[in-house]
Amino acid sequence: MCTAITYKTKNFYFGRTLDLEYSYSEEVVIMPKNFPFSLRHTTTDKRRYAIIGTAFVPDTLPLYYDAANEAGLSMAGLNFPENAKYNKVIKSKINIAQFELIPFILGNCSDTDEAVKLISKINITDTSYSSELPLADLHWIIADKNKCVTLECVEDGVKIYDNAAGVLTNNPPFDIQTFNLNNYINLSPEQPENTFSSKLELKNYTKGLGAVGLPGDLSSQSRFVRAVFTKLNSVSGKSEEQSVNQFFHILGSVSQTRGCNRLDGNKYEITVYTSCCNASDGIYYYTTYGNHRINSVDLRKVNLKSDGLYRYPHIDKESINKQN
Amino acid sequence: MCTAITYKTKNFYFGRTLDLEYSYSEEVVIMPKNFPFSLRHTTTDKRRYAIIGTAFVPDTLPLYYDAANEAGLSMAGLNFPENAKYNKVIKSKINIAQFELIPFILGNCSDTDEAVKLISKINITDTSYSSELPLADLHWIIADKNKCVTLECVEDGVKIYDNAAGVLTNNPPFDIQTFNLNNYINLSPEQPENTFSSKLELKNYTKGLGAVGLPGDLSSQSRFVRAVFTKLNSVSGKSEEQSVNQFFHILGSVSQTRGCNRLDGNKYEITVYTSCCNASDGIYYYTTYGNHRINSVDLRKVNLKSDGLYRYPHIDKESINKQN
Amino acid sequence: MCTAITYKTKNFYFGRTLDLEYSYSEEVVIMPKNFPFSLRHTTTDKRRYAIIGTAFVPDTLPLYYDAANEAGLSMAGLNFPENAKYNKVIKSKINIAQFELIPFILGNCSDTDEAVKLISKINITDTSYSSELPLADLHWIIADKNKCVTLECVEDGVKIYDNAAGVLTNNPPFDIQTFNLNNYINLSPEQPENTFSSKLELKNYTKGLGAVGLPGDLSSQSRFVRAVFTKLNSVSGKSEEQSVNQFFHILGSVSQTRGCNRLDGNKYEITVYTSCCNASDGIYYYTTYGNHRINSVDLRKVNLKSDGLYRYPHIDKESINKQN
Amino acid sequence: MCTAITYKTKNFYFGRTLDLEYSYSEEVVIMPKNFPFSLRHTTTDKRRYAIIGTAFVPDTLPLYYDAANEAGLSMAGLNFPENAKYNKVIKSKINIAQFELIPFILGNCSDTDEAVKLISKINITDTSYSSELPLADLHWIIADKNKCVTLECVEDGVKIYDNAAGVLTNNPPFDIQTFNLNNYINLSPEQPENTFSSKLELKNYTKGLGAVGLPGDLSSQSRFVRAVFTKLNSVSGKSEEQSVNQFFHILGSVSQTRGCNRLDGNKYEITVYTSCCNASDGIYYYTTYGNHRINSVDLRKVNLKSDGLYRYPHIDKESINKQN
Repeated sequence: MCTAITYKTKNFYFGRTLDLEYSYSEEVVIMPKNFPFSLRHTTTDKRRYAIIGTAFVPDTLPLYYDAANEAGLSMAGLNFPENAKYNKVIKSKINIAQFELIPFILGNCSDTDEAVKLISKINITDTSYSSELPLADLHWIIADKNKCVTLECVEDGVKIYDNAAGVLTNNPPFDIQTFNLNNYINLSPEQPENTFSSKLELKNYTKGLGAVGLPGDLSSQSRFVRAVFTKLNSVSGKSEEQSVNQFFHILGSVSQTRGCNRLDGNKYEITVYTSCCNASDGIYYYTTYGNHRINSVDLRKVNLKSDGLYRYPHIDKESINKQN
Repeated sequence: MCTAITYKTKNFYFGRTLDLEYSYSEEVVIMPKNFPFSLRHTTTDKRRYAIIGTAFVPDTLPLYYDAANEAGLSMAGLNFPENAKYNKVIKSKINIAQFELIPFILGNCSDTDEAVKLISKINITDTSYSSELPLADLHWIIADKNKCVTLECVEDGVKIYDNAAGVLTNNPPFDIQTFNLNNYINLSPEQPENTFSSKLELKNYTKGLGAVGLPGDLSSQSRFVRAVFTKLNSVSGKSEEQSVNQFFHILGSVSQTRGCNRLDGNKYEITVYTSCCNASDGIYYYTTYGNHRINSVDLRKVNLKSDGLYRYPHIDKESINKQN
Repeated sequence: MCTAITYKTKNFYFGRTLDLEYSYSEEVVIMPKNFPFSLRHTTTDKRRYAIIGTAFVPDTLPLYYDAANEAGLSMAGLNFPENAKYNKVIKSKINIAQFELIPFILGNCSDTDEAVKLISKINITDTSYSSELPLADLHWIIADKNKCVTLECVEDGVKIYDNAAGVLTNNPPFDIQTFNLNNYINLSPEQPENTFSSKLELKNYTKGLGAVGLPGDLSSQSRFVRAVFTKLNSVSGKSEEQSVNQFFHILGSVSQTRGCNRLDGNKYEITVYTSCCNASDGIYYYTTYGNHRINSVDLRKVNLKSDGLYRYPHIDKESINKQN
Repeated sequence: MCTAITYKTKNFYFGRTLDLEYSYSEEVVIMPKNFPFSLRHTTTDKRRYAIIGTAFVPDTLPLYYDAANEAGLSMAGLNFPENAKYNKVIKSKINIAQFELIPFILGNCSDTDEAVKLISKINITDTSYSSELPLADLHWIIADKNKCVTLECVEDGVKIYDNAAGVLTNNPPFDIQTFNLNNYINLSPEQPENTFSSKLELKNYTKGLGAVGLPGDLSSQSRFVRAVFTKLNSVSGKSEEQSVNQFFHILGSVSQTRGCNRLDGNKYEITVYTSCCNASDGIYYYTTYGNHRINSVDLRKVNLKSDGLYRYPHIDKESINKQN
């Protein structure tokens, strides 16, 4: 499934893994603010912000998986199977199809608070993009450098949760995910003291014993705990290179290796790509399963007032540097 | 600490992570067979095989961390604190200092069986390289494309264990590591059936539930279990690129992120480098903590009969490919 | 804290542990239907059913911890700290103080469905019994031989959950407890096959490996999982002796030993008592921390139309049978 | 399988669970010192001490499962499948059949040190008691009030381990069991501080969170960890009643409920009996699966110089105390 995190050093970083058993043709897509993204049910004013992120472009419109805008607001949609419940179109409301949500929010909001306010005014609908692309069950992480929230449309209605850890995976709903962290209160990145019993000599026969109990499997709840632990205990320098480097290390801790997560029909869920967007500066970095090297696309190198998309297909082939 | 694995597709691959809180100046070093590596306690015949691997070269001699030879035999030394016990020099025997073991074995043996035979004839000594480089507590993994063993010098003497999983980490001794795998007999990469109770409806609310219980921390026993599970369930193509790519994904599952393993004095153990040697063809690939891109050095591109070292310092700076 | 379970063989059994760091003077109390239990806020008709259970009787009224009535309906209140939210008295409603809930429901309902219906008509209030006995944060398990539910008064209102496992402990709220069971879908009471990897020989070196991963600590979520696993996989004969015997074994799996759960001020939470009520026949069995022998009180041996309580203080002293 | 523990308050206590899927007719058997227990391969002097314990008496000789002698030395044999390796009879040695070991050691030694010394002089043989009673794979715990050891006859020879925790279960060999405790160094009976991350608010939503990670299944390694944790953190008064009461609570934490450990052919391993011997005073207490009440037999109430056995069949029927 997937994992998204935020990270803040001097700049603000936002990214995710996309874990799937197949891959559409992912591309980094820059959508300038004048690109004609016509909404299905609603006529809106022009968008205020250009967007950069990974998208699938089935024909002319980009379907974003994760993106950031010029103002530094970021958003990603993650799988939320069976829990996501969208609404039918309601005539009196501003209806936004689920697949339009990322460009709609990022096109119009400068920060998380604005996004939350805008969400309270809209009706998120179950409109499919097309018959070939059925409705996806998703929930979202929305973040700027100061604030991170989780957006879930469930049976009970629209929920917006404060996301203090700055991490999102998949099921269960976010309140349960957050609660579950309490069960790991006793773990630590430090070398532990013996608290098991003072009557017994126990020893730190290896480094790392303080975190024994941290789950190592690929289920969404285990990835959530592991990503939160790894991110919150992470230590890095503040430079661009140090921050980006560390970001990919953090997401590496929840990356899925082919074969370890087997689905029916000999399919394997893998981490198709991993992204890290410097949302402050609009530089989008990514790696793919097939390519360990980091690639980047810079939002500010294109004409952000253009009306066409800028598309950079993901490079999925190892780029090995031969030293001799 | 560290993790080493073997991997076999069309060719045979061997590599490891080096997990430390500091870094010497690691280099890929090719040692041609005529390079004068004079042994401390023993006069030997010329070596039969050139070697490629990562080493630290304090002055003129390479101290190898992991290496492979022309014949496809591979070997790595991993931290084994407090358990490693070497011998004093015994005049009547062939004395090999611990730090000479990798070049001595790889210089003279064509496969694992030959290595095991040679080890039975030598006395592994506690000789330090120098006063600045004290004795390291190590154990070793030795492997060719057909067979893998673990070598441990402990209180009880020299132990050579069959290493069926082709994985080595650190403490505890290898027989305990291997035994411990039995406790995970019930884990699976597949979507599990409900065996908890037929009286209750449970569901696969996420992919990956079959492996819940797999440890996710960085202790040496947890890394051993996780690396064995990831490697043995791994699925990849057989081409060079597919094999190398998958190899780095497997070791990525036990990679250490800065901050998650804190030592005294605000030091952090990290995965300094990760290597993958195509031992069949003598191509040595590596990444470093600071550089996600794979670099490679090819044994066969140099004069293997030379008497000088070929040295390629590890490149530890992100090499980002800018797509625009 | 506490654990309650239901159990059905030929008859229907219901009971619980009471885990506390102190003990009031618990007694088995039979409350005949004509006993004058005047409600604080409401004038009601006479009760239809006599009740048997463990209660604390601070002056004249019994405060029941768990009980069953003549009709076989059973109910227990378990600690639910910080999550329980009761209402203020609302004049237009039937107000039932939290401490009156067990006698009110069991006095008037013959089965779970009637109880659920009655609960929908009342307002459960935060009225304290007295200044010495402040409001307790509780949730309830209500069960007859056919149906079991969990009742929780939380921030969001009154929730009634189907309790398919027939088990209740404490925090978190019941929907989270139930969800969490999915994480154990892969556990089994059987000897497991090796699903870890077909490339490795693993063996059942001990019986019981199929349930490795079952939590063994005394937290409320771990006790819930362990009690559900133990109860649902339980096998016993159907006779009264066999059923009661097995019931105490099941609750024994979540019993708290003095010293393993330390609170501030050198206090220790222990399983003060364990009960098992044959709700079909009105026979109440219990053991205490201090007394492993089972004691019993029979509802039908007293005059159920009386207007006085029948009180049987818990016997908390080991009753050892000397065989010589 | 089984669990044995020692416990010391004012007196010294020793006992065990016997976990099996069947039951022979267990009895408490007192063997006075003059009872003619003729050894198979060896002629010895008279025994110095009378013995009390649970045994199976197939014809005239008691086969002890666990016992203590007049001097306060205690010993129990526990299942050790596939690891136990006994010797053939060697003419030059004092040959003691495995099934004679408990009466031989307890009949002749006054403390653990004497027992260890005597064991070093004997040859423990693989002699079967009879064709109906084949050789059992066992290892032993031997303890007096000052010292506890584990005795294992394995491939490598006879091993005697210091048993600092005073606990024995079954496989794996004792050095691995002991090593494994290090993995739980971070657990605690106390309410934990948040060491997961200072950047996140986590809370003790339940008592007992400090021991999350303690295994709860019935495998021998999990029972070992749980029994050690429970015993070493145990708190009780020092009186006879308080000590015996607490002892049964400790072993209750590793008791096996019917149905949770399923073997082939619809058999279930259960805790057939649980014993607690006050080895200081020679009072043997026990409960059975079928009887929660504690029964006792007093060594000093019989003639310890007699030449006949005193036999007290286990009482396996609930002895319920009716309070009305």
